[in-house]
Amino acid sequence: MAAEEEDCRLKMIKSRIRDFPDFPKKGILFRDICPILKDPGALSAVTSLFEEHVRGQFQHVDFVVGLDARGFLFGPLLAQRLGVGFVLVRKKGKLPGATVSVAYDLEYGKAEAEIQEDAVSPGHKVILIDDLLATGGTLYAACALMHQRQVEVLSCLVVVELKDLNGADRLKPHPVYSLLQY
Amino acid sequence: MAAEEEDCRLKMIKSRIRDFPDFPKKGILFRDICPILKDPGALSAVTSLFEEHVRGQFQHVDFVVGLDARGFLFGPLLAQRLGVGFVLVRKKGKLPGATVSVAYDLEYGKAEAEIQEDAVSPGHKVILIDDLLATGGTLYAACALMHQRQVEVLSCLVVVELKDLNGADRLKPHPVYSLLQY
Repeated sequence: MAAEEEDCRLKMIKSRIRDFPDFPKKGILFRDICPILKDPGALSAVTSLFEEHVRGQFQHVDFVVGLDARGFLFGPLLAQRLGVGFVLVRKKGKLPGATVSVAYDLEYGKAEAEIQEDAVSPGHKVILIDDLLATGGTLYAACALMHQRQVEVLSCLVVVELKDLNGADRLKPHPVYSLLQY
Repeated sequence: MAAEEEDCRLKMIKSRIRDFPDFPKKGILFRDICPILKDPGALSAVTSLFEEHVRGQFQHVDFVVGLDARGFLFGPLLAQRLGVGFVLVRKKGKLPGATVSVAYDLEYGKAEAEIQEDAVSPGHKVILIDDLLATGGTLYAACALMHQRQVEVLSCLVVVELKDLNGADRLKPHPVYSLLQY
C-alpha cells in the first residue's frame, strides 16, 4: 500500500469525525464516529486499514476481541476480513455461563469487564479493538482479562486516539495502533 | 438460492446457539449467540442470509439501523454487504448532538432508545436489525423512533425469534424476518 493512498483514506475518514464540545459533560470534546458508520466507503476504508496493519505485522491471529459497545461496530468486520472469529468483552452481567471478570476505574466509580471463560484459551493470540482510546481504562481491563486467560494481546486497535490522555502509556507493553490521533 | 442450501446454512447457524437455563434469572432460557460470532463461517452465513432476504424483497434501502449493543455485531456487516450506511440506535445519553428519543417498558422499569436527529431523514427506507426478538420492546421503540422521523421501516431482522413471546405481533404492521425460531 503506497503511503499516499493510505493518507488519502485517512483524510477521508478524518473528515467523517464530528466534534461535539461539552459532551457528555462540560469540558469534554466528544469525537463522534457515527458519520463513519453512515458512509459505507469510510467504514470499508477503516476496516481495510486495520486489516492491512494486522496482516503486515502478525503472522497468526486467533481472534479479534471487541469491547462493548462500540468495539462491536468495527470488530466483526475486521474478523471477517481476517477470516477469524470475534469474541465479546462485555460489561458485567451480560454474558451467560462461566465468566472471568476484571474491575476497572471509571472517572466516577468502577465498572467490570467480562468474557466467557471458554471464549479464549491459553496460548491464543488476539487483536483487541475499540472505537476510541482515551485514558485506556477499558482496554487495560480487557488486556488484564486476556492475561488471566494466558492469552497474548498482539495489538490494541482503535479508530481515534486522544494523545493527551496517555492511554497508550497505560497499555504498555501492548502496542496501540490508531488511525487518527488528536 | 436453493432451499436445500439455505436449510443447510440455517442448521449450521442453529448448531452454534447455546442454551443457558436460568440466565439472567430463574425461569429464563438464554439463547447465547456468541458462538456464531466466534465461527467466521457461521457469521458469514448469517450475513449472507440477511443480505439475500433484503435483496430479494426490497428494491431500495437507505440505511441499516442497528440496536445497542448486539445489533451492532450484525448490522455493519449487513450494511457493508448492501453497500449502504449503518445508523446507531443507542440507550439514552450515549449520542452527542441533537437527538430524538422514545421511552419503552422493560420487565422492570423503563428505558429510552435514542438516535441522532440527523441520522435519518423523512422518506428514508431502513432495515432494523438486532440479535434476538423476545417481547419486542426495544425494536418497537426503534420503529417508533423511525415513525417520528417519517422513515419507513421495511423489515425487522433478527437472528433468533422467541415465538412464544409474540414480539412479531407487537411489531405489526412491520414484517419480521428471523433466521431461527424457538
